[in-house]
Amino acid sequence: MTNDDGYASKGFQAAIEVARRFGRVVAIAPEMPQSGMSQAITIYNPLYLKKVRSEEGVEVYSLSGTPVDCIKMAFDHILRDRKVDLVISGINHGSNSAVNVLYSGTMGAAIEGSFYGCPSVGLSLTSHDADADFTASVYYGTKVIESVLGAGLPLPLCLNVNVPVGAVEEIRGVRVCRQTRGSWRETFFCRRDPHDREYFWLTGDFYNSEPDAEDTDEWALDHGYVSVVPVQVDLTDYSRMDALKKLI
Amino acid sequence: MTNDDGYASKGFQAAIEVARRFGRVVAIAPEMPQSGMSQAITIYNPLYLKKVRSEEGVEVYSLSGTPVDCIKMAFDHILRDRKVDLVISGINHGSNSAVNVLYSGTMGAAIEGSFYGCPSVGLSLTSHDADADFTASVYYGTKVIESVLGAGLPLPLCLNVNVPVGAVEEIRGVRVCRQTRGSWRETFFCRRDPHDREYFWLTGDFYNSEPDAEDTDEWALDHGYVSVVPVQVDLTDYSRMDALKKLI
Repeated sequence: MTNDDGYASKGFQAAIEVARRFGRVVAIAPEMPQSGMSQAITIYNPLYLKKVRSEEGVEVYSLSGTPVDCIKMAFDHILRDRKVDLVISGINHGSNSAVNVLYSGTMGAAIEGSFYGCPSVGLSLTSHDADADFTASVYYGTKVIESVLGAGLPLPLCLNVNVPVGAVEEIRGVRVCRQTRGSWRETFFCRRDPHDREYFWLTGDFYNSEPDAEDTDEWALDHGYVSVVPVQVDLTDYSRMDALKKLI
Repeated sequence: MTNDDGYASKGFQAAIEVARRFGRVVAIAPEMPQSGMSQAITIYNPLYLKKVRSEEGVEVYSLSGTPVDCIKMAFDHILRDRKVDLVISGINHGSNSAVNVLYSGTMGAAIEGSFYGCPSVGLSLTSHDADADFTASVYYGTKVIESVLGAGLPLPLCLNVNVPVGAVEEIRGVRVCRQTRGSWRETFFCRRDPHDREYFWLTGDFYNSEPDAEDTDEWALDHGYVSVVPVQVDLTDYSRMDALKKLI
């Protein structure tokens, strides 16, 4: 298990709750929040690893790196000789639907997990509140993982699961979706610091290019469903290959 | 223009050489090296922008953020009211072929550029040498961009261009390829710091899952060709949707 909000986040504790239902838990999460870190790896700095909790069936470590560093540290160091049945990343404080899958540290880690040949699930709740209620996320996260693990789908398998805010009984169910098309535009927040230097801060808005498409994750979340998008990592745009071959 | 090795890198100067052939250049690159930063954005910190060079037809800025921050700063602040014809990211010191497209700050920025509705090209040389010879990269980078810009292909358009080490006349030409399947495995370099704390450093090896596939970018580069992979960002694994719908 890992996440991108850091090992101390409420969502991470909720994810441990999910994971415990399935077996022994080894959790390695960033020491500090790493939201928006995408699939970043730490090349220029050493990494420090610390065991922060150990009890029956649950070991928790913190790492001074990115979510992907955590996954690499888990598979290639801590668990080197052990079999891993499932990677869980999350539960993220904030949605990772649509193009957010590309910026998300949670999903970066889930994708990395799938590279190691085991099913990998990124879980997110569409609320940034540090004290958000994860009850429905735990319920639906467990449900999705049960279905998937039970079925023994071929690998690699990586799922991007987003849960809307609301009580279990308010959520209308689970929908398998595709990633919504759209992108972010930034309005930079601009101020002067105490040393009178101008600084900027990202403050973007997401523009959904297809708000009415009922097969998308944004639509599902907007209509009270849990969205599940199967994720793959071949970025090749096969539709352009013939045209490019003629040109180049 | 941007890159991930920082505005002072030799590859960035080479990319400016490419870009000048096509028109006015506005370059915004990270203050510090940002290799492996993927599509990361800076959420928790303010960003500082500095003009570092200005001459006829070339403006260069440094930004205290990631490559994707640079692209956002370019489109949503510096160039807000101007038309951008082309984004160039690079020339990277090191290959961004295969799965490296996911970890690469260079390609993260190129992908982000394509979100702003203009053709976007990531350029990389398969050498990490800080003083590498970029002559062939400049030659082939220019050639690829000329073909693409001239053809007016539909947008979004994003290309991942990798150039093998060698003189222009040693390179066998350009191949349009798909992203090679494979992944990295880490052997963590482990030492003790001056304070006697154990630290780890990533030192991975790439495993090519399909070394004999002649339509892949790794094959092209290994055989002396420039590889061009068209890139798209819908990570949905459409091949899994029906099976998942039955399960969930």
